[in-house]
Amino acid sequence: MTHTLISSPQKEVVIGFDRPFTMIGERINPTGRKILAAEMKQGDYSRVEADAIAQVQAGAQMLDVNAGIPLADEPAILAEAIRRVQAVVDVPLCIDSSIIEALEAGLAVYQGRPLVNSTTAEEEVMERVLPLVKKYDAAVVAISNDETGISEDPDVRFEIAKRIVERAQDYGIKPQDVVVDPLVMPIGAIGQAGQQVFQLVRRLREELKVNTTCGASNISFGIPSRHGINNAFLPMAIASGMTSAIVNPLHEGLVKSVHAADVLAGNDSNCENWISHYREPPKEGEAAGGNRSARRSRRRRA
Amino acid sequence: MTHTLISSPQKEVVIGFDRPFTMIGERINPTGRKILAAEMKQGDYSRVEADAIAQVQAGAQMLDVNAGIPLADEPAILAEAIRRVQAVVDVPLCIDSSIIEALEAGLAVYQGRPLVNSTTAEEEVMERVLPLVKKYDAAVVAISNDETGISEDPDVRFEIAKRIVERAQDYGIKPQDVVVDPLVMPIGAIGQAGQQVFQLVRRLREELKVNTTCGASNISFGIPSRHGINNAFLPMAIASGMTSAIVNPLHEGLVKSVHAADVLAGNDSNCENWISHYREPPKEGEAAGGNRSARRSRRRRA
Repeated sequence: MTHTLISSPQKEVVIGFDRPFTMIGERINPTGRKILAAEMKQGDYSRVEADAIAQVQAGAQMLDVNAGIPLADEPAILAEAIRRVQAVVDVPLCIDSSIIEALEAGLAVYQGRPLVNSTTAEEEVMERVLPLVKKYDAAVVAISNDETGISEDPDVRFEIAKRIVERAQDYGIKPQDVVVDPLVMPIGAIGQAGQQVFQLVRRLREELKVNTTCGASNISFGIPSRHGINNAFLPMAIASGMTSAIVNPLHEGLVKSVHAADVLAGNDSNCENWISHYREPPKEGEAAGGNRSARRSRRRRA
Repeated sequence: MTHTLISSPQKEVVIGFDRPFTMIGERINPTGRKILAAEMKQGDYSRVEADAIAQVQAGAQMLDVNAGIPLADEPAILAEAIRRVQAVVDVPLCIDSSIIEALEAGLAVYQGRPLVNSTTAEEEVMERVLPLVKKYDAAVVAISNDETGISEDPDVRFEIAKRIVERAQDYGIKPQDVVVDPLVMPIGAIGQAGQQVFQLVRRLREELKVNTTCGASNISFGIPSRHGINNAFLPMAIASGMTSAIVNPLHEGLVKSVHAADVLAGNDSNCENWISHYREPPKEGEAAGGNRSARRSRRRRA
């Protein structure tokens, strides 16, 4: 059974076929968030800290931290963001950058065993990222594209993922420490994007025996009522064998859909997690979220 | 490609691997509905008619009609219910009874090509139901249990389904006209019930090449916040290849989760159905249902 261990000083998360699905909170990312980008650049991490706390309260078991701000000192900002986040929440982190120096700065300050996001199959990227992953004994996200871009053919994406897993082994990184991102394309542009990724996840699990992740919200890019698509996508991906995803846990219904899929995939023993969150049936029309503390307090009053 | 054609005088529904998932409304069933049972027994079909209209408005493409009332004249009541329902809605029906005489009475009055619900693999049942299905050129639901009961082993349930499909062929009924119900067990009692049914549906589709259906809400029997489980179960079943289910389309979020799964399964060309229902993003906290007419009128005001 494939287990990818990620840790903070206080907590271990195991991504695995027989484990509850791992939700990695996506919010700490200045891409498309002008105010957050400006604040981080000026050394104001209050929003980063608030986003970290809110996502963990909503149900994220890990957080992604990205500091991709144009014309800023990304290594320094990413390192500081990681320090700040680790000071306010106890979940393990995903260190996210396309700049190697930023990954290294993040790895140098991180306490625990992080997930490095990411390498592709591009030679130049693998040659620089994989030694870092080995040096810090981290796990790594492997994105299934290479110098030729992203193939629409799931078989090609499978072969590219396999190539990264094999190359990682050359660097002494075990396959269980490579979490493959099969690349989720927008269903509004590519009508077969859902089926492609479901098939690919199944093959990655059954043949390559690796854990998988994805940027889940990509699937609904550009179409209306995105949450409705996302909240069906995750159970379908889980039914196909996906074991983690980078998501926004604050989106209505998302955490609940994942908790339900955990029950149905047989990864919530005796429905214990489900019952602890959702014991009280929601009232007619009530939006049932995954906020554990809110639900707990409601139960106490009952 | 397997296609099961069901029809009313006004509409054809094709259950198929490459078609939108077929939602069969479950509400017209007096089991556990004392008031409805009493009304039907007294010849008052007003609630039956209202339930028929509401379910179709909510998004059901077919309706199940059951008249199982203890100590009542079930054949006469079922036939009358079918007449009344066909007078107020234009969708095809599923004629549902465990009493052969009731199935025959329903078949005799039905206009179009119905789905007969159901036969099991019990010899006595197959011998009586299958000739009726052939006589009326109907399609039939095949429930995968036999004289020995319901097996917890998915391989046994597969073999039982195969036996019904083969026996149906002896009676001149094509495999495409047999819709297999793999039997959904409560996840609260059997922790592997979800995985069992997903695997079984996949085998039924890939090896036996038949359409599938189920009583979807069984999965969540006895556990809290059932809708949350049901609304994740259907996308997972669809990802596994299920092509129809008997559901309550009035339950919050259910129709939307199926419409989203259709998009993701590649069975909503250019997201046309999705966009026609959900073009306007729901407001924060708003419950987004599948009520087409409500959504249309809201769009007009915008």
